[in-house]
Amino acid sequence: MFDTVLVANRGEIALRVLRTCQEMGIRTVAVYSTADADSAVVRAADVAVQIGPPQPRGSYNSASAIVEAARQTGAQAVHPGYGFLSEDPDFAEICTANGLVFVGPPPDVIARLGDKAVARKLMSDAGLPLLPGSRRVVNELGEALALADEIGFPVIIKAVAGGGGRGMTVVRDRRELPGAYRRTRSTAQALFGNSRVYIERFCEQVRHVEVQVLADSHGNVLHLGERDCSVQRRNQKLVEETPAPGLDPRLRAAVADAAVRGARAVGYVGAGTFEFLVADGEFYFMEINCRIQVEHPVTEMVTGVDLVREQLRVAAGEPLDLTQDEIQPRGVALECRVNAEDPLRDFAPTPGLLDEFQPPAGPFVRVDTHAFPGYRVQPHYDSLLAKVITWAPDRPQAIARMQRALRELTVSGAGVCNTADVLGEVLAHPDFRAGTHTTALLGAMLADPPAAPERAG
Amino acid sequence: MFDTVLVANRGEIALRVLRTCQEMGIRTVAVYSTADADSAVVRAADVAVQIGPPQPRGSYNSASAIVEAARQTGAQAVHPGYGFLSEDPDFAEICTANGLVFVGPPPDVIARLGDKAVARKLMSDAGLPLLPGSRRVVNELGEALALADEIGFPVIIKAVAGGGGRGMTVVRDRRELPGAYRRTRSTAQALFGNSRVYIERFCEQVRHVEVQVLADSHGNVLHLGERDCSVQRRNQKLVEETPAPGLDPRLRAAVADAAVRGARAVGYVGAGTFEFLVADGEFYFMEINCRIQVEHPVTEMVTGVDLVREQLRVAAGEPLDLTQDEIQPRGVALECRVNAEDPLRDFAPTPGLLDEFQPPAGPFVRVDTHAFPGYRVQPHYDSLLAKVITWAPDRPQAIARMQRALRELTVSGAGVCNTADVLGEVLAHPDFRAGTHTTALLGAMLADPPAAPERAG
Repeated sequence: MFDTVLVANRGEIALRVLRTCQEMGIRTVAVYSTADADSAVVRAADVAVQIGPPQPRGSYNSASAIVEAARQTGAQAVHPGYGFLSEDPDFAEICTANGLVFVGPPPDVIARLGDKAVARKLMSDAGLPLLPGSRRVVNELGEALALADEIGFPVIIKAVAGGGGRGMTVVRDRRELPGAYRRTRSTAQALFGNSRVYIERFCEQVRHVEVQVLADSHGNVLHLGERDCSVQRRNQKLVEETPAPGLDPRLRAAVADAAVRGARAVGYVGAGTFEFLVADGEFYFMEINCRIQVEHPVTEMVTGVDLVREQLRVAAGEPLDLTQDEIQPRGVALECRVNAEDPLRDFAPTPGLLDEFQPPAGPFVRVDTHAFPGYRVQPHYDSLLAKVITWAPDRPQAIARMQRALRELTVSGAGVCNTADVLGEVLAHPDFRAGTHTTALLGAMLADPPAAPERAG
Repeated sequence: MFDTVLVANRGEIALRVLRTCQEMGIRTVAVYSTADADSAVVRAADVAVQIGPPQPRGSYNSASAIVEAARQTGAQAVHPGYGFLSEDPDFAEICTANGLVFVGPPPDVIARLGDKAVARKLMSDAGLPLLPGSRRVVNELGEALALADEIGFPVIIKAVAGGGGRGMTVVRDRRELPGAYRRTRSTAQALFGNSRVYIERFCEQVRHVEVQVLADSHGNVLHLGERDCSVQRRNQKLVEETPAPGLDPRLRAAVADAAVRGARAVGYVGAGTFEFLVADGEFYFMEINCRIQVEHPVTEMVTGVDLVREQLRVAAGEPLDLTQDEIQPRGVALECRVNAEDPLRDFAPTPGLLDEFQPPAGPFVRVDTHAFPGYRVQPHYDSLLAKVITWAPDRPQAIARMQRALRELTVSGAGVCNTADVLGEVLAHPDFRAGTHTTALLGAMLADPPAAPERAG
């Protein structure tokens, strides 16, 4: 195992990775921007290296600064967390070229899966079902129109390099297509430096179901069950859970099987997530995330597997010390992402100083957070404040526990808002409680907000 | 289920009970002494009633004050936590007489099991093995000497009303017996208002193993596995774990079976703990605790069962919604009790104001605590500051996680000490790591302290 690991990230995920490293007896190196000099990550690491300015470009997205910090501190491996450079094949390549182990799949696998058109082709070849639509890039408007006519409206135009809900446009009417096609391409160019797009059918009433896989460099591939992430605002996940509610056993087995088959087909190594749409009893491959995901704790809660530990073990060349039969999920886990955003101003981020911050606690509650009283929520990074995770033997109890936990969370600071109340409304919604909600739930709720709930004294 | 439950306790256990009540949709009433007016318990409850002065006699031990608070607030049931009135049959009786449900066994069961001589007789009749010694009270010195000669030295003299390590004296030499007999009787009279004692063989190298049982009022009795609590200082538990390390399968099954048999024999209802000594491959019944125990979270971590929820359900007359087969413990859980005590001054309590208090967090870590920055550790109550609980698939990982968690815990305040470092030394001790330690471990460590460990930078 590695002596020293550098965590090339910030916030809650950096803390989470540090903790597992420490439990494995690994010396930890944190890197931080000047905005994060007083962070919990800096305090928790054995060594912390300042690598640049608040702007990610010069710090958390700077491969050279990170590699230099690894050199200075004697780190042998780099864990990229999620976001930033975690799915950048060039960064993985640079790490390797500098004698550092990148904790993730091989660079060529990341490159292939990061291009969604290539990934779709690979997975289609491996037998995974795709939504009707292009299996390849659409290169001109005429082609886009012909394809959309063939698929039928509504369609969605997606940047091949997109992700996290950015670089995609829904088109409901043929007349909107030319403008939407041009806009999506130019947005994609601006955001990702790559204007290529593809088109597929847009399903209104769908569920987002994803499968966690783990693969080692000895040919072992496992899945750790699925997660439902259908509570989304503009394609950003807000509530995640496992197992997926209302998924029939045949479909549950089929998505897991598809993910394992897909992972084998591309020579996947490490932790990864296969994302699917589920609609009308069928499932369709969407994309693969080549990293640990924000919502990984729900899988940890039901399986008892520390996914970061397995990532590190696999990266060090060790075989998985689990078999598929040994993974026996137990109960139900939910995660709510509490963001520092103002729901009344279209979820605008609200940076600022926290006077109070008290996470909930108690049996079967886990909170992954980098916040503390006196922490300043930074404007430069994502607005995630805390992930509240609950477990229970069944879904109603897990929901009740989450409602209690969200009520217990205390956050205050001038100008800092948070999304706990919105999450509470989701948990109370009849469709969510019935487990029949789709990705349309939150949009519909926000378009038609409920009356202010009465509060018990 | 109850509409309103009063929690007749303070500190971490009161918070823990409140949380489960809230998750069950039950309105909560806290009671508090003037010393606890600013406590987390008071803030967390729906209603809080001040019931008296800091001294427990006029507040947490005052049955009349608690019953009056229940009357004022419309509570239908009283959860006593542990300590204070939790095993007082008179209090249970008074609750019942006032139309309140006491969350615990029937008063007559508490009364019988609270008298250790009676409990020993009952359990012996039910076929549970006892240590060689009196099955009944020793009434005069001559009888004590004759019995000790028969058992063989060393022996231990125990108050029938004792508990928590108080009211017991080890006698290694016949000549010490007369003085020890008289002293133990007068101490027992002073502490418990009851001078009766019994004598049994004293085993030097023993393990403390206890079994968690749950019984409902419909005749169902279950066990939730055992806990090892052999890390003790003067009979006070400091580290607890489940499953018990190094217990052979035959013995593991035998202690669980004995506990279930014993619970059936006395008509037990509620959550209870059967405590045994294990020595040389044999086990001996010691006593029964008729309440939730401090160390109950380790059982919750491996079984997924919320024990307080089951207590409340059983108290409301509901049947257990579990069968023995459904209880499938997974992995290993440890608990460390971090006390506000000074290890360098014979573990004297160190009350005072906490400037900093930051509990550890992360995957599979649970911290049950009532402390927070600005909390004043009270001199009037026990010195428990936080229970740190970790879970992992195996014991070495659970220990490593605990070591990380204890290092992460931050506590500071003028004059306030804590026992985290001592706990860390226990976790690092070869006997503990091998799982071969006995109740003699901590005493031996403290008598012969290790050199100050070198710390990594």
